[in-house]
Amino acid sequence: MPRYAYVNGQYLPHGRAAIHIEDRGYQFADGIYEVVPVAAGRPVDESQHLDRLERSLSELRIAMPMSRRALELVCHELLRRNGIRDGLIYIQVTRGVAPRNHAFPADASPALVMTTKRMNFTGQAKFTDGVSVITVPDQRWARRDIKTINLLPNCLAKQTATEAGAYEALQVDDEGNVTEGTSSNAWIVTGNGKLITRHLSDDILHGVTRRTILAIAAEEGVDFEERPFTVAEALAANEAFVTSATSFVTPVVRIDGKPVGDGVPGPLAQRLLAWYRDYMAGLRVGA
Amino acid sequence: MPRYAYVNGQYLPHGRAAIHIEDRGYQFADGIYEVVPVAAGRPVDESQHLDRLERSLSELRIAMPMSRRALELVCHELLRRNGIRDGLIYIQVTRGVAPRNHAFPADASPALVMTTKRMNFTGQAKFTDGVSVITVPDQRWARRDIKTINLLPNCLAKQTATEAGAYEALQVDDEGNVTEGTSSNAWIVTGNGKLITRHLSDDILHGVTRRTILAIAAEEGVDFEERPFTVAEALAANEAFVTSATSFVTPVVRIDGKPVGDGVPGPLAQRLLAWYRDYMAGLRVGA
Repeated sequence: MPRYAYVNGQYLPHGRAAIHIEDRGYQFADGIYEVVPVAAGRPVDESQHLDRLERSLSELRIAMPMSRRALELVCHELLRRNGIRDGLIYIQVTRGVAPRNHAFPADASPALVMTTKRMNFTGQAKFTDGVSVITVPDQRWARRDIKTINLLPNCLAKQTATEAGAYEALQVDDEGNVTEGTSSNAWIVTGNGKLITRHLSDDILHGVTRRTILAIAAEEGVDFEERPFTVAEALAANEAFVTSATSFVTPVVRIDGKPVGDGVPGPLAQRLLAWYRDYMAGLRVGA
Repeated sequence: MPRYAYVNGQYLPHGRAAIHIEDRGYQFADGIYEVVPVAAGRPVDESQHLDRLERSLSELRIAMPMSRRALELVCHELLRRNGIRDGLIYIQVTRGVAPRNHAFPADASPALVMTTKRMNFTGQAKFTDGVSVITVPDQRWARRDIKTINLLPNCLAKQTATEAGAYEALQVDDEGNVTEGTSSNAWIVTGNGKLITRHLSDDILHGVTRRTILAIAAEEGVDFEERPFTVAEALAANEAFVTSATSFVTPVVRIDGKPVGDGVPGPLAQRLLAWYRDYMAGLRVGA
């Protein structure tokens, strides 16, 4: 079965899916994106992802490329054409094509690209064995709350992690506090069982999975606090984990080579993952 | 005459010049660029621009897309095909096309795009009348020394300038010092006639025009110092100006609405511009 990509109004075979060299996404990283998990054929937290997409565009003053309803229809049609049951939808919107000039063009139309990826969510070792992470200085720009395609610093940090045999790099601010991973939010569970993740601000992405996990924690009566934490506090914690659209709840068992807690996935991370899987499968309402 | 773009081995009509949607330049801003001025059919400071291109690629561990000699040949062939005598060459290199994943792909080939633009360097009011600039907080990432396509913060700041009726935005660091413009280096001339521009570090782009202007200043016996300066110092200065591959030496006559010096282009800026024009025309050796 050929794999299709949606590009500016057309469903194209993936290999022929192209954009113009003067698309501002290519020359200036002037665009935003979303990654929506898909479980049992259904986009998970679709409305929250599209809310964030709208907010990112609004912050950059890029118009919506089509109505919200049309965007949902394209998502669903692309999933259907590509026969995706479990995987993800990738959505990218840029300011469009215009002669190169830093300032916004007067008359460009937003460009929309959508792709899908098939994934197998079961049997992944990261969920059962946990992962190692490293820490790196956070070198990114000041507006990490906008989900832009200015991702080079994230790529460089992820590559550093990969070369160290680690799954993710936790980025650390000038005060020594963890901001977040390169493509995930970071969490710890303190010695007295409290769940901690950094509070929302311009310093971190406002993760959709982060939001769902907090909602589940609240429903389940898990005590939590949104505040910064240091690498030392994470190393002294009972548990650590990262969350994202594709990491779900991935236990962190080593940071910079040192074990977190007992060096095995923690019980709260495992419970949150199980609850989140139920949520993805539509077996939990609320959250 | 059709205008051509060079894209990964082919000279294509500009309207049909496209790259794949999974080029890492489009998804991650994982690439670099150069803008080389062209005067009287000759690329200006070509070797310094290609040196910087090689350094940017090396810092990101992207391989050269072709040999240095081949790159020069493509530059010259594109200028010839497009009949450019005065204007610029735009060169962009990305890590290439690969399935989306933050870490570097194992086997992607660097992608090379080259375009040209015709410009008229005479009679531009900015050189004779000077320009207004505004100041904005510097929100960029930590490695401004690498000439990457992570340019969204630069675009946002330039747009703020444009909407304020200004030519450029000077970006200001947490200490209150000017780093540089969004696409130019910033300079002042103090009350005692000393030329000041920020020293090289990761905080600013290592401008090729900046380098040439410093060399000309040294040859002409102009006293200069490379150090940070504040907005207040710039406002109290005799002169201010910005330099870049397309701004050459552009006098700054107002900052945030307040006049610099007498509110007209300063004498040293005008002399440096005249010397630089001679240099571009091949009428100066050295520098």
